[in-house]
Amino acid sequence: MAVEIERKFLVEGDAWRDSVTASRRIRQAYLSNGGAASVRIRVIDEEKSVLTVKSKGKSGEAALSRAEFEYSVPLEDAVAMLDLRTGRIIDKMRHLVPAGNGRTWEVDVFAGAHEGLVLAEIELEAADEPVEIPSWIGREVTGDPRYGNVALAQEG
Amino acid sequence: MAVEIERKFLVEGDAWRDSVTASRRIRQAYLSNGGAASVRIRVIDEEKSVLTVKSKGKSGEAALSRAEFEYSVPLEDAVAMLDLRTGRIIDKMRHLVPAGNGRTWEVDVFAGAHEGLVLAEIELEAADEPVEIPSWIGREVTGDPRYGNVALAQEG
Repeated sequence: MAVEIERKFLVEGDAWRDSVTASRRIRQAYLSNGGAASVRIRVIDEEKSVLTVKSKGKSGEAALSRAEFEYSVPLEDAVAMLDLRTGRIIDKMRHLVPAGNGRTWEVDVFAGAHEGLVLAEIELEAADEPVEIPSWIGREVTGDPRYGNVALAQEG
Repeated sequence: MAVEIERKFLVEGDAWRDSVTASRRIRQAYLSNGGAASVRIRVIDEEKSVLTVKSKGKSGEAALSRAEFEYSVPLEDAVAMLDLRTGRIIDKMRHLVPAGNGRTWEVDVFAGAHEGLVLAEIELEAADEPVEIPSWIGREVTGDPRYGNVALAQEG
């Protein structure tokens, strides 16, 4: 079990693209988002697949820290499980951009239903760890349920 | 991925107890039972733990055959995930009883909220495989939603 602490921001403009060190395509969907946990299946570059159980974050500060359980699963299982989803498949390119303190920005460029949306996330050791904010980082949306992965996977 | 074909029956009396070859305690709960899949966490004899994703069976004949994905997970993860359940923890002793054709009856004796309920399941290769029915096997409840694991895990 890991406890995940992360902050999430809107991205403004393309200046971050010059600093990208790696990119991968992520397709993911939820088998469940009701109850106390969400269950997500994720396929990375059509190669690697991960099943993740996360305790539900509450809005506000509590959203920074959640229990998370991750398991690698066979690709063929994952592709079959995508068909058992609730809501839609999220399809995005994830670009890694180095941050200060050895941290990494994950810049997600959404395709399909969320075309045009670009979000940046940074994972931290502690909720109050200082973060250097580049010029292309816009408004913070940590804990805003509209930008949660579960919400983005909901239809309509 | 495995496709599971099984039949389920009520059990009458204790005659099966003479033929038990192994017994184990199972504690299990659902992280999700909405949508197209159920997600179950199971702890066996407080030693081994399994996370299972099953496509939802429909009532009647379709209930015989479901997609099932099973993954071993660390015991400490499983115990933490039981706290993220929806509904109640099912606590039962599972006893194995040899059946014909190299098959095995799984006789589940429920504790707690379902004290007094005893169910027998047999897993088959094909839905129409003949099954020898011992005298202690009662009414068939395959596909009866009241005796499904998901229903038994619901509160109230």
